[in-house]
Amino acid sequence: MLGLMQDQPLLISSLIEFAARHHANAEIVSRRVEGDLHRTTYREAAARARQVANALDRLDVPFGDRVATLAWNGYRHFELYFGVSGSGRVLHTLNPRLAPDQVVWIANHAEDRVLCFDMTFLPLIKAVWKNCTTVRHWVALCDAGALPADTGIEGLVSYEEWIAPQSTTYDWPQFDEKSAASLCYTSGTTGNPKGALYSHRSTVLHAYGAALPDSMGLSARDSILPVVPMFHVNAWGLPYVAAMTGAKLVFPGAALDGKSVYELIEGEGVTMAAGVPTVWLGLLNHMAPAGLRFSKLNRTVIGGSACPPAMISAFKDQYGVTVLHAWGMTEMSPLGTVCTLKLPQQALPPQQQMAVLVKQGRAVYGVEMKIVDPDGGELPWDGQSSGDLYVKGPWIICGYFKGEGGDPLVGGWFPTGDVATIDPDGFMQITDRSKDVIKSGGEWISSIDIENIAMAHPAVAMAACIGVRHPKWDERPLLVVVLKPGAQVTREALLAFYDGKVAKWQVPDDVAFVDAIPLGATGKMQKMKLREQFKDHRLPTA
Amino acid sequence: MLGLMQDQPLLISSLIEFAARHHANAEIVSRRVEGDLHRTTYREAAARARQVANALDRLDVPFGDRVATLAWNGYRHFELYFGVSGSGRVLHTLNPRLAPDQVVWIANHAEDRVLCFDMTFLPLIKAVWKNCTTVRHWVALCDAGALPADTGIEGLVSYEEWIAPQSTTYDWPQFDEKSAASLCYTSGTTGNPKGALYSHRSTVLHAYGAALPDSMGLSARDSILPVVPMFHVNAWGLPYVAAMTGAKLVFPGAALDGKSVYELIEGEGVTMAAGVPTVWLGLLNHMAPAGLRFSKLNRTVIGGSACPPAMISAFKDQYGVTVLHAWGMTEMSPLGTVCTLKLPQQALPPQQQMAVLVKQGRAVYGVEMKIVDPDGGELPWDGQSSGDLYVKGPWIICGYFKGEGGDPLVGGWFPTGDVATIDPDGFMQITDRSKDVIKSGGEWISSIDIENIAMAHPAVAMAACIGVRHPKWDERPLLVVVLKPGAQVTREALLAFYDGKVAKWQVPDDVAFVDAIPLGATGKMQKMKLREQFKDHRLPTA
Repeated sequence: MLGLMQDQPLLISSLIEFAARHHANAEIVSRRVEGDLHRTTYREAAARARQVANALDRLDVPFGDRVATLAWNGYRHFELYFGVSGSGRVLHTLNPRLAPDQVVWIANHAEDRVLCFDMTFLPLIKAVWKNCTTVRHWVALCDAGALPADTGIEGLVSYEEWIAPQSTTYDWPQFDEKSAASLCYTSGTTGNPKGALYSHRSTVLHAYGAALPDSMGLSARDSILPVVPMFHVNAWGLPYVAAMTGAKLVFPGAALDGKSVYELIEGEGVTMAAGVPTVWLGLLNHMAPAGLRFSKLNRTVIGGSACPPAMISAFKDQYGVTVLHAWGMTEMSPLGTVCTLKLPQQALPPQQQMAVLVKQGRAVYGVEMKIVDPDGGELPWDGQSSGDLYVKGPWIICGYFKGEGGDPLVGGWFPTGDVATIDPDGFMQITDRSKDVIKSGGEWISSIDIENIAMAHPAVAMAACIGVRHPKWDERPLLVVVLKPGAQVTREALLAFYDGKVAKWQVPDDVAFVDAIPLGATGKMQKMKLREQFKDHRLPTA
Repeated sequence: MLGLMQDQPLLISSLIEFAARHHANAEIVSRRVEGDLHRTTYREAAARARQVANALDRLDVPFGDRVATLAWNGYRHFELYFGVSGSGRVLHTLNPRLAPDQVVWIANHAEDRVLCFDMTFLPLIKAVWKNCTTVRHWVALCDAGALPADTGIEGLVSYEEWIAPQSTTYDWPQFDEKSAASLCYTSGTTGNPKGALYSHRSTVLHAYGAALPDSMGLSARDSILPVVPMFHVNAWGLPYVAAMTGAKLVFPGAALDGKSVYELIEGEGVTMAAGVPTVWLGLLNHMAPAGLRFSKLNRTVIGGSACPPAMISAFKDQYGVTVLHAWGMTEMSPLGTVCTLKLPQQALPPQQQMAVLVKQGRAVYGVEMKIVDPDGGELPWDGQSSGDLYVKGPWIICGYFKGEGGDPLVGGWFPTGDVATIDPDGFMQITDRSKDVIKSGGEWISSIDIENIAMAHPAVAMAACIGVRHPKWDERPLLVVVLKPGAQVTREALLAFYDGKVAKWQVPDDVAFVDAIPLGATGKMQKMKLREQFKDHRLPTA
């Protein structure tokens, strides 16, 4: 027997229409590529999203076809989010930090039909457009007047020209909520990039989950600054959450330096900002020397990689800002866990609270987690047992676009590739990436733990710990280090630095000093390349 | 093209399993009928919910069959919420405040197969059980020892006896999320009661919506006291929201007097309490003379009927507690709107904020609203135009159980029967019930406005305003008044009290003093009965 409730699909178009109706005058402020601030409202953004939908209908881009963007965070990108997905096409956000040949490879693999780009990326588009074989229409996100006449790109039009003649009314189609809505490729460190294909249902459910008080806690009283790019897992879903809650939106464009971000936060009364640790480092480095303060900011969501405890403390103690440590993946829309205290933990002394807050946090309802041993057996949530982290839920992928990489699930669960512990209260802590764990004589050594200790040494700028073949122990840890300019430390002094900080058998067997550690497109260390480079390294203990 | 996201239905069983796993040790505290406090956890409650599911399997109660409850708010009722719905049966919460023949009528109409009741209601069950023709199994929510041997009720068993032999493990079935989950009859003032049949999908989506920061803002840092009964629209969905968020739950049982509620709030560190205005009046009346304070309570959700502005101020100014004014209906699961300020309104002076906070509030995403004129034409959101309030969304009914009353929808919208204004910011304010509006010469007079003014007169205990036939104006308002014990006021003085408070043509034409105004099972004034009583009343103006 079915319930007798209205059958209304969860569609992305309903988010923007809700915002237009219930939060018509809430602001969307964007720092443009030109440097100026642009101000609009949800009412206006919805009207322009409808123009986008009408414009796509005119181009005869069929339902389900991909419309790509190569753009910073801004109001036009926001309009495309809703106009493209809402009208039944699939929004494909390309990552402009990738190498040109990777952009081409991904655009061709996605079979993008339209590509909309910020003027910053005109040189890139000029270089690659002929190789993007499926793209029929090129849209530059600017006024007609800002578009040079001599680009040579066939079918190029400015965004404003493109949508201007279109009606601001549009009957959003109603369809299966499981239909594809957006596509984002992972920056896989092995093999070709693979696409995560989100649905309308997953996007709306994720927005509910992300807005909850135990997640990002977003409301119509917030002014949100998504520093995390809209080309990276839909800016953690923030554009959708903002429309759902009617929060003010502040887009930073391309200016992600500390000074620009600080000015935007203060100028627009930002209450919540979200991004990766490096952005916040730049912000704090800008603020500290000048003795600057926040007037409205009360929390930052930090994810993408682990947030150093020192940064959590600095935000809290010096600026009164709560750091919400979060963890997720492209394959998870991306939200998996957020670290917020539970009721009994609120009475703990600050130091014990900090021991909780450095963890990646608790799952929000909609995400199930487990940790398993190498045989797939579930491990206890004791805060000690460390195993492969598996997840499942309605906003987690069941496969990659076009079936690339085969079936990624194991018994219905998605293996995250992370190694983690979970404590009895459900707080998860990443201890390593599965492939980076060093397996020494049947015991696991966390490369992250070893790196964090090295990073605390005053002479060390960057550190990576990798496993190197060892005749007796299978693998033993090698520490690869970049020193700070002008700093010096010996191999022996650095290894002695581990005394009392880890068990003796976890101390690296050797140190290699290098000029640079290779980084990927999203700033992560490419340990695979390091392992290749040091595969014949002879450990002194071997 | 469909997205590639995991296909996981939104089921009520996943809420309790999430709580058991991620919030195993969060507490559920219940004041029992016996008067003592009972303490358990989500881990234990989930185990017992699984025992309920196993026990129902043994009774051979088919999927979709109704299992009724007649019970106060408590841990056993909570276990039934999840054990019954989670295993695919339909939880039917009966309202014990109804007359015995109404209980019988509803139980027979619902075709309840099992009926679980608190011992408070044993006399009622003794009186009616033979007339409940479909019920095969009677379960008393108590220990075996607490059950008298001589009840005469065939097939009666105590809850603890019933579930004790059952396994605490259970494989929750996976099924269509649109399946029926629970059933609640409206206390219709006209015709027979009609059943709202909620689905698993609607229940989970409603829980997301209700937990949002712009709704009740619930998290694992809350200790929730649902004073609103679990037999009334699932206690506004709070048992589900609590499981979703891992909040501590505090159940008041049958003790809803000011003293008991206050002691529970203080003793259990309640941060959020939800109920109808009369309960809070009792609470404040208990606290004021003794100069009592709240130590943790920071907000109350008040719904069911409009909250008097004086109560909102008292909570805020004297106790530092925010009143969240809410509006909904049985047909809406029930949440429609909650009154929380928007970003720009936070800067308003207190008096202007109060002008917003007395409204019923803004829709949460998942609820669409419109107001229409008598021809169905949509009216503007100008805060002035008053019209019939229509709603739609995935947790709003599309029909009543067994099709009673025909198709309630009008063009896909559910007419709430309320008359309301909506301001440009989306804040809705109920001005009347459609059938209570007084239509005077083509103009509408809000009976609620007239009553509120009378209620502010020191001599008036209760006031109802109804329309009475008038030869010239079709209808004119008659004020029906119950005076406070020992108080006196003349007809003329009471009518003069309206001077300057409403337009002259809105002032009632007459006053009738009565000893009592008839109230329904949920404490609402039964104006239909008053209209019948005064249908031949001759107005002095006629």
